[in-house]
Amino acid sequence: MYLDYRKVRPYLTTKSLSPENQETPIHFISLLQPVADQLFYRRNHFSYPILTPESFTLKISGSVDQALQIHYSEIIMLPSNSYRVLIECAGNKRAYFKEKVFGEQWEDGAMSEGIWKGVPLKTFLEYTGMEEGVTEVVFRGRDSGIKNGQYVHFERSLPIEMALHPEVMIAFEYNGKPISHKHGYPFRLIVPGWYGMASVKWLTEIFLVKNKFTGPFQTDDYVYYFKNSTSEPVTTNKVNSTIQKPLDRQLVKSGTQEISGIAWTGSGVISKVEISFDHGANWEQANFDTPTEENQTVSWSYMKEFKSGNVYHITVRATDSEGKTQPADAIWNKKGYGYHAAMVITVKAE
Amino acid sequence: MYLDYRKVRPYLTTKSLSPENQETPIHFISLLQPVADQLFYRRNHFSYPILTPESFTLKISGSVDQALQIHYSEIIMLPSNSYRVLIECAGNKRAYFKEKVFGEQWEDGAMSEGIWKGVPLKTFLEYTGMEEGVTEVVFRGRDSGIKNGQYVHFERSLPIEMALHPEVMIAFEYNGKPISHKHGYPFRLIVPGWYGMASVKWLTEIFLVKNKFTGPFQTDDYVYYFKNSTSEPVTTNKVNSTIQKPLDRQLVKSGTQEISGIAWTGSGVISKVEISFDHGANWEQANFDTPTEENQTVSWSYMKEFKSGNVYHITVRATDSEGKTQPADAIWNKKGYGYHAAMVITVKAE
Repeated sequence: MYLDYRKVRPYLTTKSLSPENQETPIHFISLLQPVADQLFYRRNHFSYPILTPESFTLKISGSVDQALQIHYSEIIMLPSNSYRVLIECAGNKRAYFKEKVFGEQWEDGAMSEGIWKGVPLKTFLEYTGMEEGVTEVVFRGRDSGIKNGQYVHFERSLPIEMALHPEVMIAFEYNGKPISHKHGYPFRLIVPGWYGMASVKWLTEIFLVKNKFTGPFQTDDYVYYFKNSTSEPVTTNKVNSTIQKPLDRQLVKSGTQEISGIAWTGSGVISKVEISFDHGANWEQANFDTPTEENQTVSWSYMKEFKSGNVYHITVRATDSEGKTQPADAIWNKKGYGYHAAMVITVKAE
Repeated sequence: MYLDYRKVRPYLTTKSLSPENQETPIHFISLLQPVADQLFYRRNHFSYPILTPESFTLKISGSVDQALQIHYSEIIMLPSNSYRVLIECAGNKRAYFKEKVFGEQWEDGAMSEGIWKGVPLKTFLEYTGMEEGVTEVVFRGRDSGIKNGQYVHFERSLPIEMALHPEVMIAFEYNGKPISHKHGYPFRLIVPGWYGMASVKWLTEIFLVKNKFTGPFQTDDYVYYFKNSTSEPVTTNKVNSTIQKPLDRQLVKSGTQEISGIAWTGSGVISKVEISFDHGANWEQANFDTPTEENQTVSWSYMKEFKSGNVYHITVRATDSEGKTQPADAIWNKKGYGYHAAMVITVKAE
């Protein structure tokens, strides 16, 4: 095309290459559209697993009445559902903790949203049945490597009640196409409303167990270790928001300009997004630009008059239908999970 | 290819799309190789100019003995030189000023280095001749738009002494290929040792003048405005360095690990790179992994024993052959140019 040389597009932001960790350029995409596969954030614990013929067979065993081995070609023929699901890394916004923590310094792009299609996990568990006393379901990914001196696979468990939730699914499509290799081909567990570690990629085996699963990604990583020495597992996404426009420290044009962004929560829906220009003394409501009742995420905007030469501090906080509101300060925890303090930016009008 | 799905590569980091500003993933590339065109940082003041047949003719006029219009097809036939040149944006590292400044928040990737080929500007000025009293040469790019309420082209001047420097050239190739559209096709002025604003892209006209050029990119932008109300034009690159590996706040493996990075300067060459683990009380010398006498930039490394559980503060500073050393603190200036404080990172050994 004649004018192709003038085309401009955003790219993933590289955080590490081994393993590959790259974040979505969240300030430069609209969440009104599902995030394109090539801009979906990539978060890996190990190098990418090799695809073999065995990768297409899913095994379900452990405390079941009858174990199951089922092939990709059979799974895609079963009754399936499609949901718009937000997947957000538990470490999203880690770089923003004022008291710094070690680990990947994710800014605000370790999250992406799109349409996942798959078969409810429940469908498979109804087929296998389960023994009395099953408490958890363990999910194994094909990705593996050395963790704390041991060779392990990426493995996570869900409480049995959550595993039976009708929206928890074994997905095989993203945005209408087979899931790409980097995001779990051929199967990825999808757990809506939970941070991304629960949505196990390259799913290969599922075990039903009666004891507490204690793998390193369950009891060492993905645990909030608080200052007072208590701890708590990382589960659902916290209520959160991001200002996409303007950018922090941007020189904005004077006159009426739009302030816009996104808000999301793990349980319930977003009920309110508020904006303050005086560090939280007064709040005004932003408008919703997407329906609040269907999706976990909303786009919001607010029109503001900027006067040339003035400096503006802009704070935004979201509240969800369960009454939870973003705090002014982050809840510090040793591994830096679940950052969800209200976002503050400073801009100057030209 | 069978294993293509496991390939991992870094991308440009998106800072803004209109105009396009994207930085090089500097921590994930080796400066032992010229930076590939698609990872060369992009810094624009306006949208990309349209290419027309007229774009291929360069005009030189003003206080000359005879004006010159010369076509691309003639320029590429003239005797030319190739140099490895570092181009660094004057705003590189702006995000690191502790007292924040407004404007594009460049981290440390607004710099790239590669092989530029072109004809010395001197060759053309010898042909045109110049009138008595010429003090500056003004360079106009084809990129244009509204700046401070006026429609302007991107224009910069060089003092006549600098314009006659044998390494200042009108380049038409980058890394052995025609310069890409996004980086100035067909012609880009290359001014080695000066911050990137001097290397005017999409060069279309050159004027010799006897007065001080006062365009907005000469006397409003690209000026150091210091705290004490004095000011000074931005010219040559300051002595500087970046730690590429490890990353700040990374969890590093225990045992002997390499610390590595790059160092560069605008005049002279790098003579010394030092590393400190006690905030600058004691310094040790890093090794050079590239020759220091040929290039403006060097790669350096240092082997360090990391003990499990320990936290390390790592400071690096470079010194050049003119005796200039990176300061411990940045020299704050209103528009945030020339950040070159010694870099400090903190890591923990696992």
